[in-house]
Amino acid sequence: MFFHRQELQHRAKPDRPDAVYARKLQEVLGGQYGEITVAMQYGFQSWNAHIPGKYRDLLFGIGAEEFGHVEMLATMIAQLLEKAPVGVTEDAVQDDPTVAAVVGGMDVQHAIVAGAGARPVDSNGNPWSAAYVTASGNMLADFTANANAEMQGRLQVSRLYHMTDDAGVRDLLSFLIARDTMHQNQWIAAARELQEEGVEELPVPSNFPRSDEDSEAAYQYINFSNGEHAGEGSWARGPTPDGDGEFSYLDEPPAGEPMPSPTKPDSRFYGTTNLPNVAEKAAGKVQDKLNKE
Amino acid sequence: MFFHRQELQHRAKPDRPDAVYARKLQEVLGGQYGEITVAMQYGFQSWNAHIPGKYRDLLFGIGAEEFGHVEMLATMIAQLLEKAPVGVTEDAVQDDPTVAAVVGGMDVQHAIVAGAGARPVDSNGNPWSAAYVTASGNMLADFTANANAEMQGRLQVSRLYHMTDDAGVRDLLSFLIARDTMHQNQWIAAARELQEEGVEELPVPSNFPRSDEDSEAAYQYINFSNGEHAGEGSWARGPTPDGDGEFSYLDEPPAGEPMPSPTKPDSRFYGTTNLPNVAEKAAGKVQDKLNKE
Amino acid sequence: MFFHRQELQHRAKPDRPDAVYARKLQEVLGGQYGEITVAMQYGFQSWNAHIPGKYRDLLFGIGAEEFGHVEMLATMIAQLLEKAPVGVTEDAVQDDPTVAAVVGGMDVQHAIVAGAGARPVDSNGNPWSAAYVTASGNMLADFTANANAEMQGRLQVSRLYHMTDDAGVRDLLSFLIARDTMHQNQWIAAARELQEEGVEELPVPSNFPRSDEDSEAAYQYINFSNGEHAGEGSWARGPTPDGDGEFSYLDEPPAGEPMPSPTKPDSRFYGTTNLPNVAEKAAGKVQDKLNKE
Amino acid sequence: MFFHRQELQHRAKPDRPDAVYARKLQEVLGGQYGEITVAMQYGFQSWNAHIPGKYRDLLFGIGAEEFGHVEMLATMIAQLLEKAPVGVTEDAVQDDPTVAAVVGGMDVQHAIVAGAGARPVDSNGNPWSAAYVTASGNMLADFTANANAEMQGRLQVSRLYHMTDDAGVRDLLSFLIARDTMHQNQWIAAARELQEEGVEELPVPSNFPRSDEDSEAAYQYINFSNGEHAGEGSWARGPTPDGDGEFSYLDEPPAGEPMPSPTKPDSRFYGTTNLPNVAEKAAGKVQDKLNKE
Amino acid sequence: MFFHRQELQHRAKPDRPDAVYARKLQEVLGGQYGEITVAMQYGFQSWNAHIPGKYRDLLFGIGAEEFGHVEMLATMIAQLLEKAPVGVTEDAVQDDPTVAAVVGGMDVQHAIVAGAGARPVDSNGNPWSAAYVTASGNMLADFTANANAEMQGRLQVSRLYHMTDDAGVRDLLSFLIARDTMHQNQWIAAARELQEEGVEELPVPSNFPRSDEDSEAAYQYINFSNGEHAGEGSWARGPTPDGDGEFSYLDEPPAGEPMPSPTKPDSRFYGTTNLPNVAEKAAGKVQDKLNKE
Amino acid sequence: MFFHRQELQHRAKPDRPDAVYARKLQEVLGGQYGEITVAMQYGFQSWNAHIPGKYRDLLFGIGAEEFGHVEMLATMIAQLLEKAPVGVTEDAVQDDPTVAAVVGGMDVQHAIVAGAGARPVDSNGNPWSAAYVTASGNMLADFTANANAEMQGRLQVSRLYHMTDDAGVRDLLSFLIARDTMHQNQWIAAARELQEEGVEELPVPSNFPRSDEDSEAAYQYINFSNGEHAGEGSWARGPTPDGDGEFSYLDEPPAGEPMPSPTKPDSRFYGTTNLPNVAEKAAGKVQDKLNKE
Repeated sequence: MFFHRQELQHRAKPDRPDAVYARKLQEVLGGQYGEITVAMQYGFQSWNAHIPGKYRDLLFGIGAEEFGHVEMLATMIAQLLEKAPVGVTEDAVQDDPTVAAVVGGMDVQHAIVAGAGARPVDSNGNPWSAAYVTASGNMLADFTANANAEMQGRLQVSRLYHMTDDAGVRDLLSFLIARDTMHQNQWIAAARELQEEGVEELPVPSNFPRSDEDSEAAYQYINFSNGEHAGEGSWARGPTPDGDGEFSYLDEPPAGEPMPSPTKPDSRFYGTTNLPNVAEKAAGKVQDKLNKE
Repeated sequence: MFFHRQELQHRAKPDRPDAVYARKLQEVLGGQYGEITVAMQYGFQSWNAHIPGKYRDLLFGIGAEEFGHVEMLATMIAQLLEKAPVGVTEDAVQDDPTVAAVVGGMDVQHAIVAGAGARPVDSNGNPWSAAYVTASGNMLADFTANANAEMQGRLQVSRLYHMTDDAGVRDLLSFLIARDTMHQNQWIAAARELQEEGVEELPVPSNFPRSDEDSEAAYQYINFSNGEHAGEGSWARGPTPDGDGEFSYLDEPPAGEPMPSPTKPDSRFYGTTNLPNVAEKAAGKVQDKLNKE
Repeated sequence: MFFHRQELQHRAKPDRPDAVYARKLQEVLGGQYGEITVAMQYGFQSWNAHIPGKYRDLLFGIGAEEFGHVEMLATMIAQLLEKAPVGVTEDAVQDDPTVAAVVGGMDVQHAIVAGAGARPVDSNGNPWSAAYVTASGNMLADFTANANAEMQGRLQVSRLYHMTDDAGVRDLLSFLIARDTMHQNQWIAAARELQEEGVEELPVPSNFPRSDEDSEAAYQYINFSNGEHAGEGSWARGPTPDGDGEFSYLDEPPAGEPMPSPTKPDSRFYGTTNLPNVAEKAAGKVQDKLNKE
Repeated sequence: MFFHRQELQHRAKPDRPDAVYARKLQEVLGGQYGEITVAMQYGFQSWNAHIPGKYRDLLFGIGAEEFGHVEMLATMIAQLLEKAPVGVTEDAVQDDPTVAAVVGGMDVQHAIVAGAGARPVDSNGNPWSAAYVTASGNMLADFTANANAEMQGRLQVSRLYHMTDDAGVRDLLSFLIARDTMHQNQWIAAARELQEEGVEELPVPSNFPRSDEDSEAAYQYINFSNGEHAGEGSWARGPTPDGDGEFSYLDEPPAGEPMPSPTKPDSRFYGTTNLPNVAEKAAGKVQDKLNKE
Repeated sequence: MFFHRQELQHRAKPDRPDAVYARKLQEVLGGQYGEITVAMQYGFQSWNAHIPGKYRDLLFGIGAEEFGHVEMLATMIAQLLEKAPVGVTEDAVQDDPTVAAVVGGMDVQHAIVAGAGARPVDSNGNPWSAAYVTASGNMLADFTANANAEMQGRLQVSRLYHMTDDAGVRDLLSFLIARDTMHQNQWIAAARELQEEGVEELPVPSNFPRSDEDSEAAYQYINFSNGEHAGEGSWARGPTPDGDGEFSYLDEPPAGEPMPSPTKPDSRFYGTTNLPNVAEKAAGKVQDKLNKE
Repeated sequence: MFFHRQELQHRAKPDRPDAVYARKLQEVLGGQYGEITVAMQYGFQSWNAHIPGKYRDLLFGIGAEEFGHVEMLATMIAQLLEKAPVGVTEDAVQDDPTVAAVVGGMDVQHAIVAGAGARPVDSNGNPWSAAYVTASGNMLADFTANANAEMQGRLQVSRLYHMTDDAGVRDLLSFLIARDTMHQNQWIAAARELQEEGVEELPVPSNFPRSDEDSEAAYQYINFSNGEHAGEGSWARGPTPDGDGEFSYLDEPPAGEPMPSPTKPDSRFYGTTNLPNVAEKAAGKVQDKLNKE
């Protein structure tokens, strides 16, 4: 169950409206790595969890916080839109170049669709999609996804920090950046703990029988480009992070398998096949002509 | 530039057709974590890279391999579809329960749209979307995304391994699982090397000025759920993985900020505002009535 | 702020797993009118509200409940999937026709992507999209949208009720149906109250100046089809629900305006325009040939 | 069958081109509540109708009108784009700030993709999606959806009215606003008539057996937020609009059900489960090492 | 303006319901190349046309027919769904294998969402998207798109013809196949006429100044794969269809240009750049530590 | 297998950065007819091909080239973004109207999401979708789709040519225009060759038995609009391009079939049906009231 309290975790009040910035801020509300994504992602991971206890509690605990971040950003955006212009572009342009830039740069759906309200979309107006969510049931894979989501999110908020000088907005972003620092650290710590406790190990999924894997291909860096430095990294020699192998390096791929023969499905799919077809077809036409006569 | 050779990196030939399995295999071709995703993801990361040398070479090197995996899966799926049925459901059902299951379980667009060919979609027929791709320009964030993609991909291929007993299919999956092992290890090694060389550090982005961050909130686990085990993990006490702080734990959030006042945008947006509006409206109606008379 | 408690509002436990039904139940979790839609819709309406007090409180109050419904359905689906099969289709078919039907009828991504977990998608596997959400800032319009959402939702849950005989599932659906009864009634009551209090009136938006509207066209039913009963309803004669007019009926549309002339944009768009173009083109070719020589 | 006449229902001719406004106008052509949505929505409702006569005739009659509205807006947009610029941004900026604003504010696909033509997209360039359409087979639910669609549509056109001072455009919008007034009234009248005639009643679907519903939960407002005014509306006390109950009010939810135990699906899904797994895994690794030796 | 008559262009009545086939038939109603696509495509091409007369009349004339095809398929699908099952899967399976196959193979949203009605989706349940529509303003390009759409459509209907033995359905398909024959022929004839009349020519757009084109690259087949037969076709030697050149053949690409240097954007994007960064970062950390003390 | 060489097929280096133009150029990278579409389209057509030899070799040969075009455009866009502004809109506006236009006109996700890098999206920020791809297995249909794709692509690049005066960009576009000239010619030549060799013929699919087609409707132009010039083209009289018929012209459609009766599905779908329902409903309510007492 979720309970709502009519308070925000942190102050979310801009010093002044800025409709162009409101559009930009949508990215971290409704974008691929925005707050809706992490709230839903941690939610589905918790509801699908297969073990009780600290890992699931962690998912529940951070998940609910993220729903509150959705709310902080939405109310911030609504306030940034408070003076969003309704009027005629040309007038705006003649009055004031700043207004003209607003007219050009704001999300027009903020005005037309939401009447100066926040929307569940990204900064280009793409509606948020659940295709952004990752929840596989394997915690090591999913915590890595979560660490990535927090990294991408913090990166985007940091860029947005420089795109405004509004102290009220920056105050909120400064808080969100800090929470992303925290959550990045937490998912990395949790992924590490899963491995230290032997609950999950690398490579994911670690309990797939290694004997069913093509062992020769498992630790070989095969370079499909002609980059001369590709073999210089720790990914091309030395022990592998999963502790099970040793990297080796091939400058180019070994000879491949011949391309399989083209397939010959049922002729009623009318794919382009071969000459016999033509004969049939010719026969068919003759038949059709006879039928017409 | 990309060059194509009419060979496959590994044999991709099923022992027998299986249209139901063909649909399932679409997931790792055209799904969120399928081969199209990683091919395009590594491609965009390489084209957007800001430094030459080994890291970019690594992206180019693996990226091109993944385009070849797209091809192997597509040709495998086309072969699995070679005997895909065209005929009438009811006949199928009466003839043979196995055929009936095929009719129920195959991707109908494999038949109707592609005429027994592979498609750039997932196992539920959703077209592949570039919204799956991550390429931020920050290599530590992106290599974490890549590690995640390889984990999710290997997990899915492992599940698919158990859904068939066709030795030819399993032979290819066994190879793909091995390559995912390899690539998982490589991205983890590369992410580690970025940090060891001081090119990038945690938290991402590490050169955002820490003084602009809300330092109090940066290492505090605030539990928004009532899970009693949430504070037991290494994410709630001890040093943080970024090496810059110490985790602390709050059992519940501190008092929040009052919800900001509702916004009052331009009345020409016709949002629901307050009583004055009503007076205006009444006046307007009177006026309109006068106008009509 | 949202707080989570590790309890469910109502018992959500099936008597036995049923992977085919799990797929069907996804509709009311992640479909156009599923619980994610209403949770997000009431959320955005509350965050964008322009007046404090009872109407906004109503949005906050129901919104948070709906996030809990998302959770109940997700955990229910996860339990329905507990015995989801991993194995080979053909074996299943030969063993047991029921298993065969499961293999054909379940959501394959439940198995391959989520490893027997719930997903933020509808019953056809389409990811939930924020394009389903309505939040215009006008409460009379939005409460009508909400009433519709609860009607469509209750309709779908009612249909789903008959698609299972699992007492545990039916117990949850019976509860959800009741909550939809309640919420339908509430949004209708709230829409009525907005009008009785004169906060908003019909037609939406009521404070658009009626004198700027084409008054002749405002109460005329123009029949564009040849249905002979179209003029029999209360929508074709008598007073209009907005209290401002009287319906009239036209059996067919009056003469229209001539189609405007085709447009002639800049020739550098290379649209198909007229003969002069051809002359230019001919001249260009001559010129090109000269250039080549 | 549909027949086309090369006339428009109303004059659709702007006084002058305005490419920025053309983009905005796309919202009511190809947006969530644009004319394509209502045309398709009424179409599908009529084709799926289960009763002949006046209600189906109403759907056919308005549906065909809406296809003509699609056409009016498309031709209007094409004319607004007639002078859409092709040239270089920087030149534009230096020549004339108005042109600069156009370059910044127009839909670039109007130029690049359609060569100064209308497109089936919204004002942010999202392609129209059939996911906007509602057609459930239950007329009370669907007419409520229709009333909502007309309200949202009229609201958007009203906002757009203030964003231009072109008399030709305003003339068309004034007509469209009037038709939305009409159709709003019609769907409300039709929904009322369904109830008065006893064809459908509240709550939708009214013939779901009320005895199968959790009657206790059906008329109880449970407040999941802490809004102190939530209990003041007519939705919290007094008779319910469906005529079957009496609202009651709970300030907060009663105690919930314990969260169900985590699920334990087949181990071949490789979800994160428990310690036994680890033992298996360890055994597997030993086995694998033996296999390698 | 569009007018509707409550008749169908051709009889659309199945001999018996078939819910599984109803799902398949959705492809040619709401799929990439279904009737909605062609209706909307010809509509937008006509509304955006830049010349009056026979070409635009052709677009209007066929476009309106296609809206009637949408209607025929929708009513056919509704009838095919008339006996769509509501009940419990397991019962179905035990009663009758045919019913079981239906339960597995039908579109579950037909039941849950539309209550046994047609939907604006394809055979995999993907909502129709306006991203399928092509309308560029250049008639030679667009008529080629139209010819392709009719070819793909006729191909799909032909496949569907073999998937049923219902005489009523086949009667409608037989009619649709004939109309696709007609329209294929018409678009090919119209594309040819555009060229014969010199209105448009190959290559599209033919009035782009040929002198601004890289003439060397314009008629050279550069083979990027190692297929030994690639040079055997009429696309590798002889005159080109546009009448302006002569094909030549290169067995492999000439030497390319070196990859451009990586970009160095503003450091506030926090992309991964070079060592100086590290120094800055180190300095920043020192500064931060000082700030903390 | 695909191999990558760290070279570009043609120089891709702008004379100066231009973030607004970078957004526009995205159209031909990630739009409906951008390079990703053709690369994937030719790829899937080759992998699904049913005959070996020159036609499949052609698909492989051009397909791989297109992947290299994706790369050229991506690196070009990254360079155009090299000076993309991070800063505050208002400052920009006050500093310099050109910068203001940039802020208004650039793709904000280029900055926020990609940190000044190319993205797999179109010029309105819609992510590339595999729903753009056509691969039916019938080569005549598919080569027509390919010819169309090259025409639309060349049209868009030609428009883009006029939107910049950067000599470096124009040099690349000039090359791409030439390659589109080439590929247009090639697909047209290949489609012609298929017919000349009798492998495929018109209408597609030509081996569908003509006797199963409604022959009367196959060559009749039925005009559903009132365009007086519709009958003047070569599509209304004379021999048909498929060589099998003679066009005829009907000024308006013949009388249609009566609309089929509405359907009566299972009452548990709760669709709006008829009066008997009401009686049941009343009875149910009585029963419910009894149950409550």
